[in-house]
Amino acid sequence: MDLVALEEIRQVKYRYLRCVDLKLWDDLAEVFTADATVDYGTMVYGQPLKLTGRDEIVAFLRAKLGPGVITVHSAGQPEISIDGDQAIGTWSFEDTVIATEHRVVIKGAAFYQDRYRRGEDGRWRIAHTGYVRTYEAMLSLDDLPSFRLIAKLGADVADAAVR
Amino acid sequence: MDLVALEEIRQVKYRYLRCVDLKLWDDLAEVFTADATVDYGTMVYGQPLKLTGRDEIVAFLRAKLGPGVITVHSAGQPEISIDGDQAIGTWSFEDTVIATEHRVVIKGAAFYQDRYRRGEDGRWRIAHTGYVRTYEAMLSLDDLPSFRLIAKLGADVADAAVR
Amino acid sequence: MDLVALEEIRQVKYRYLRCVDLKLWDDLAEVFTADATVDYGTMVYGQPLKLTGRDEIVAFLRAKLGPGVITVHSAGQPEISIDGDQAIGTWSFEDTVIATEHRVVIKGAAFYQDRYRRGEDGRWRIAHTGYVRTYEAMLSLDDLPSFRLIAKLGADVADAAVR
Repeated sequence: MDLVALEEIRQVKYRYLRCVDLKLWDDLAEVFTADATVDYGTMVYGQPLKLTGRDEIVAFLRAKLGPGVITVHSAGQPEISIDGDQAIGTWSFEDTVIATEHRVVIKGAAFYQDRYRRGEDGRWRIAHTGYVRTYEAMLSLDDLPSFRLIAKLGADVADAAVR
Repeated sequence: MDLVALEEIRQVKYRYLRCVDLKLWDDLAEVFTADATVDYGTMVYGQPLKLTGRDEIVAFLRAKLGPGVITVHSAGQPEISIDGDQAIGTWSFEDTVIATEHRVVIKGAAFYQDRYRRGEDGRWRIAHTGYVRTYEAMLSLDDLPSFRLIAKLGADVADAAVR
Repeated sequence: MDLVALEEIRQVKYRYLRCVDLKLWDDLAEVFTADATVDYGTMVYGQPLKLTGRDEIVAFLRAKLGPGVITVHSAGQPEISIDGDQAIGTWSFEDTVIATEHRVVIKGAAFYQDRYRRGEDGRWRIAHTGYVRTYEAMLSLDDLPSFRLIAKLGADVADAAVR
């Protein structure tokens, strides 16, 4: 069992998730192989979402999950198998999206099914990521009149009129 | 510190959690020793729940958490101690159960207290699992009239009448 | 890559989180260096919160998060870098606070930015912990009239009048 490679693969996944939620789009590109593919499988955008290539993936995430949208992407429970410079991994996943402008909260869970590849520079990157949804649900903040945001990325907003 | 055994134990726990949420009951049996015991300690079913033996455990989960119930079981923060072919482990745990038929959501958190045993085939399995609840709470979906399921296991349900 | 030190650092973090949620204040002190600092950065208590010294930190947590308050602190996705007897680490984090007496729920997410130090006794401890909030939100249980607590730390409360 190559414990160092396991740790390196975990860390590239963690960096991906952190860069998405902190909106670090330039750092995000580095976690993907140039020919990476994603299959987010969500219906939020009307159809299963397939993207090809690091540039397309980062451009999509930057456009959809940019500063106005609060996102929390939590993954754990990695079951990773390594075969030379290739690896596959399954992860549990829970996400929360709070779009205050649209007064909507989206919550869901899934299992990621990823592929990883070690480049000539010795670094592991995500070659494919996708998931199978356990569930995904939407809720309007209109059902929760007392809901109040007290902090968000880049700003503490206690007592402010931000909702 | 036996890092390989630590990883093997984590993976058997992750497989258990994944099999429950993806309803992979046949694969689930493999994670338990034949004489495994569980003590889920929950009051949802009216009393603390104790089960003995792999077959009884899997039969219970299959009956209670089957296809009609959305479950998310997330565990992390493993503190595992190994002593030869035995190990004990504590894990943090959060669960979500969405029973749309009964229009109820159950959310909770706990700390697992597990025992593991390495078999003659060299594989670690769960010999006992149980937990201490931090909290568990129920909520009716009637309080959230806008709640809408947009995906569930085995089906994306956007725009469908599924609630 | 020092995999043993990585595991030791993860375990001290997990012990910190577990001791907070299980209210094990005496055990909690052990995870901090004597001169540890925290910067919780939350606005819940009216201003960013900075504390200095193990005793002050533990006294604050004991006073604020004591038996009447349900807390769930979940951290994962560790990206840890070790340099001799010092280390830094970033973690994803989600917290839930349920203060039934005040009929309020607080939910949030953040990224921890920690520093760790290995003492002369060879044990890693937290020398600094703080976080950057992704979001934090409050909700009154008055919006959820069906909400019912069915278990809490130290007591199963099914069918009791506890809310």
